[in-house]
Amino acid sequence: GLPARESQLRKGFVGSVVVVLAIVLGLFFGLVRYTEFGEDAIEDVERHYKYFCDVQIMVFIGFGFLMTFMRRYSYGAVSFNYFASALMFLLAILCIGATQQVFWNHHRTRIQIDLALLIDCSFCAASGMIAFGAIIGKSTPTQTLWLLFWQVPLYALNQQLVIHTFKALDMGGTIVIHLFGAYYGLAASYMLSRKQPLHGLDNPKNTGAYLNDVFSMIGTIFLFLYWPSFNGALASVSRADMEHATDAEKMAQFLSIVNTLISLLGAVLSVFATSALAGGRINMVHIQNSTLAGGVAMGAACTLRMTPGGALAVGAFAGFMSTLGFQYLTPFLDRTIGLGDTCGIHNLHAMPAVLGSLVAGLAALGQHSEYLEHPNGRTQLGYQVLASVVTVGIALAGGFVGGWMSTFLNLGKNEQLTVPELFDDGAWWHGTR
Amino acid sequence: GLPARESQLRKGFVGSVVVVLAIVLGLFFGLVRYTEFGEDAIEDVERHYKYFCDVQIMVFIGFGFLMTFMRRYSYGAVSFNYFASALMFLLAILCIGATQQVFWNHHRTRIQIDLALLIDCSFCAASGMIAFGAIIGKSTPTQTLWLLFWQVPLYALNQQLVIHTFKALDMGGTIVIHLFGAYYGLAASYMLSRKQPLHGLDNPKNTGAYLNDVFSMIGTIFLFLYWPSFNGALASVSRADMEHATDAEKMAQFLSIVNTLISLLGAVLSVFATSALAGGRINMVHIQNSTLAGGVAMGAACTLRMTPGGALAVGAFAGFMSTLGFQYLTPFLDRTIGLGDTCGIHNLHAMPAVLGSLVAGLAALGQHSEYLEHPNGRTQLGYQVLASVVTVGIALAGGFVGGWMSTFLNLGKNEQLTVPELFDDGAWWHGTR
Amino acid sequence: GLPARESQLRKGFVGSVVVVLAIVLGLFFGLVRYTEFGEDAIEDVERHYKYFCDVQIMVFIGFGFLMTFMRRYSYGAVSFNYFASALMFLLAILCIGATQQVFWNHHRTRIQIDLALLIDCSFCAASGMIAFGAIIGKSTPTQTLWLLFWQVPLYALNQQLVIHTFKALDMGGTIVIHLFGAYYGLAASYMLSRKQPLHGLDNPKNTGAYLNDVFSMIGTIFLFLYWPSFNGALASVSRADMEHATDAEKMAQFLSIVNTLISLLGAVLSVFATSALAGGRINMVHIQNSTLAGGVAMGAACTLRMTPGGALAVGAFAGFMSTLGFQYLTPFLDRTIGLGDTCGIHNLHAMPAVLGSLVAGLAALGQHSEYLEHPNGRTQLGYQVLASVVTVGIALAGGFVGGWMSTFLNLGKNEQLTVPELFDDGAWWHGTR
Repeated sequence: GLPARESQLRKGFVGSVVVVLAIVLGLFFGLVRYTEFGEDAIEDVERHYKYFCDVQIMVFIGFGFLMTFMRRYSYGAVSFNYFASALMFLLAILCIGATQQVFWNHHRTRIQIDLALLIDCSFCAASGMIAFGAIIGKSTPTQTLWLLFWQVPLYALNQQLVIHTFKALDMGGTIVIHLFGAYYGLAASYMLSRKQPLHGLDNPKNTGAYLNDVFSMIGTIFLFLYWPSFNGALASVSRADMEHATDAEKMAQFLSIVNTLISLLGAVLSVFATSALAGGRINMVHIQNSTLAGGVAMGAACTLRMTPGGALAVGAFAGFMSTLGFQYLTPFLDRTIGLGDTCGIHNLHAMPAVLGSLVAGLAALGQHSEYLEHPNGRTQLGYQVLASVVTVGIALAGGFVGGWMSTFLNLGKNEQLTVPELFDDGAWWHGTR
Repeated sequence: GLPARESQLRKGFVGSVVVVLAIVLGLFFGLVRYTEFGEDAIEDVERHYKYFCDVQIMVFIGFGFLMTFMRRYSYGAVSFNYFASALMFLLAILCIGATQQVFWNHHRTRIQIDLALLIDCSFCAASGMIAFGAIIGKSTPTQTLWLLFWQVPLYALNQQLVIHTFKALDMGGTIVIHLFGAYYGLAASYMLSRKQPLHGLDNPKNTGAYLNDVFSMIGTIFLFLYWPSFNGALASVSRADMEHATDAEKMAQFLSIVNTLISLLGAVLSVFATSALAGGRINMVHIQNSTLAGGVAMGAACTLRMTPGGALAVGAFAGFMSTLGFQYLTPFLDRTIGLGDTCGIHNLHAMPAVLGSLVAGLAALGQHSEYLEHPNGRTQLGYQVLASVVTVGIALAGGFVGGWMSTFLNLGKNEQLTVPELFDDGAWWHGTR
Repeated sequence: GLPARESQLRKGFVGSVVVVLAIVLGLFFGLVRYTEFGEDAIEDVERHYKYFCDVQIMVFIGFGFLMTFMRRYSYGAVSFNYFASALMFLLAILCIGATQQVFWNHHRTRIQIDLALLIDCSFCAASGMIAFGAIIGKSTPTQTLWLLFWQVPLYALNQQLVIHTFKALDMGGTIVIHLFGAYYGLAASYMLSRKQPLHGLDNPKNTGAYLNDVFSMIGTIFLFLYWPSFNGALASVSRADMEHATDAEKMAQFLSIVNTLISLLGAVLSVFATSALAGGRINMVHIQNSTLAGGVAMGAACTLRMTPGGALAVGAFAGFMSTLGFQYLTPFLDRTIGLGDTCGIHNLHAMPAVLGSLVAGLAALGQHSEYLEHPNGRTQLGYQVLASVVTVGIALAGGFVGGWMSTFLNLGKNEQLTVPELFDDGAWWHGTR
């Protein structure tokens, strides 16, 4: 086995957790309250709790087990996913709570927790776990912690810009969650990789194994199953708003569920075909990941009347594109610019999110204005593009700076991984093989 | 490892998927629409979405992982389950949608999607995965695809006969899903097996392994947990019907949940005892499968006042019978008529479904007529028997024809598996062990 | 492999199951009925069924897979958990049904099943699986059966004392489920261990393995995900009571969810830091278990206005304490008094439950009386302590007697495990490695 990284863990990692926990604890006592509902507390639970649970399953089981495909990094996959999601969730209560309630809309002096806010926080953690997929196996626990720490305020800021300033269509977070998380992670990975040989596909530890790939399917299938809940989690109508709700609002959650489901089913079929065609055998990596591209691609358009056929076509195309990405684009980027992307998030999240944002904008052209956030489809399309560009910009800038700080500045001492430590639990965990 | 089956995959399989996807896509654009609800969209989601999710978990996690017990076919188990369920789900929207809405009841010209229809489609996929359990490891991907393709229209037809023509009691699909799926799969397996040596219990690859059997329990336990949801998924009352609903209708979902749960608990106890008694050690195959016989056996009777004791007795007997089936009947059928039944679906689905249909008919004799679909219990019993006989007939005929076409006609070239390819992922997948 | 324990299984175990099943079946027919609701059946399902499912997932997936970390006892972990939970569930319908409905509150002559009762039965099974965690690998199937059999009537009695007599705050069962189950199991384990060498940490089979530890995380994460449902499962308000419900009652389920979630998140962070600090590497045992201490510690206080900061502090402290318990206390107790505690339930359940009961009592001091079961906080605190002391007393007495009967009396013949059989599936299961 590898020698333990005792001093880094004990100083850098433990110190960082203690500092973050102290800050969060102080700010919670000072700034965070329960929402005062009266009877509406019951409605809040009835309306949101099932969806909150489903999204949480996606974040903690879905992403956590999806990454256990790594033959020597399965502990780190499921456990750092658990740790980092919990960390980001708590930070998100502060950052999203503050942007949404204090600085933008409600103009409160305290953050009030309700279940809709908690769903947003779980979304933020999902965005972080997407980014984590690019760097997993290549960063120390301390680096992971700080990279994902900084993602939270940027996520909160970008969410406000996309949803409230640009009024983009993005119920399921194609732009806010997937596009943002993917480019943040890819930029950070690019910076980390600059100092690391064998950080990519040439590393024999950077691969699956038979039973690990079965574990990974636990993640895949739960992501598949609850993606309709994910995209529709915040699409319901409160009892108070019901009287004045438009048809579009009343249909939003139903449409989100149906469109997302059908898109995913289309992706499953096209991925199996594309994988077999491209490789001559079917590749578990494609099945584990690209089948989910149908969910990403429908995150912005899910509340629209895509028609069932439209949703199916989008999903089938997203799966096709994502599989080709794994087959051809990831090796190309690895070879040419040295971009390490452990889980292939460029194929599962980045490209399908670009597609998804465009789909929403183009579909907007044919929708009744009730379904849009802008007066007409062309304006909506413009803002979809604007929101996507701004999101990619913030994500890349944030990821580059974060990745640069954690490697070139080398905030902790010796925080760089050695080659044998890459994609290996050994330095961090007891009882590895 | 085994040589790749490149040309079969690239031509037969990819070609088949492309053809099916093109047909489905065309028919979706032409024939499938969203249901136009207005406010009732919200009710549809509230009433059905939790149950839809639960049924989906059973189909994709439950059946998918249940079959990962196979030591060298775990990729195929969870992944072809994923692929084939998605395929059948999409086809079911068309076939069930058409039979229910266009040709029988609603006399529409278009299929309208609502969540009740989607639950029915997931049921159809469940029926397919039951059939898949008989042939898994013995058919090529292309054969699997076409065998399960043809099951969908037959399922839709048989469902209409059982539910609408014969008015059998079958809320949880004992007849429509389990009896039909099991005999369809067994007939297909019989035809496939005619050309295959070592297709049964004599093949050393046709067995579990330690960690694979733990994976399989993921499937078992999720099936156990959500079976009450499965049987009760369509037993709720709409707000509009509430005023005129009978007591039986108001109690239906509650009774489905309670009866199914108690029946399953009884099966768990009796299976452990029977397994230990029959084998001198406890057998994981029995635990993985026969404990679920309590759910199958209660699928037709679950809306009746079985009494808690009655539900418990039925479940305990179903588990007992199913375990004996695995222990004695499957080896006997394997030896004598060469019937291959990889997952033992005859014991988990076929026999408990025969029992379940009879239980519903016999229990009907003592029920208030409100609980029945026919004026009295004796007529109901007669129609339960009739529905079961017709179901077995359609299933066997369909399975024999489907199995015959895929082997003796040999639609694709060289679609027959060689002996080393049986129960082995190697020919189809990258990265197998 | 080990020789099969055929005669013990066939006589002792099968005989015991048959006897229990016959008794339960008889009592079900005589005493157990459905609740007669009319329309309220629909409300019962809407209010409770999601929570019932979530709690069941925790019992059957959560505890079942948590224990699969054992390298040679994974079959027994997930399967005996399945068996014993089913057994206890059925017994609990009788015992809890009788205490709650016949002898205490409703004064009926028959037990009536509704979903709230079923949630209570699942809670009882959870308590049993906690106790099972102390003895797993060290008791024969027959011993396990009878030890957990006797736990049920004691659980029902203690629940009535704690909730109805002492009116302790305990919505999530910190006292009734965790404190009781843990000390019952520890006392039983102590008695079992008296006759067993190599029953503790010195046995090389009493440890995890790489992939087993990943399996275990399935349990951990589902426990984490649904713990808010667990603590809030019975905290909802019925439609009939809504009009006269206090603010505290209307907020109870919302507060349970939010407090439990935040407490768990705090525990996750503190456990990672404490584990790395204490061991120089992170320990999967701590991650698998101690991160959940935040849920245990919030089970009694969850309906109170802890404030989000307060919930976070409690969770972080519970995780810290639990991790130190695994690191230092369990080895100490193993070495000094020979207390075997296979899963470390003293650290995950016993100590955090003591903490949780105190937290509820102390928090009660600052609550509006609406939130309390007693007129003021000081009385409430006193009853929290009293309830905890009585619970520990009943649990220890029950566990000692039960453990003594199953070893020193040796009810079955040769029911003692030999050393090679400890922590090994081999004697009981087909197909072990």
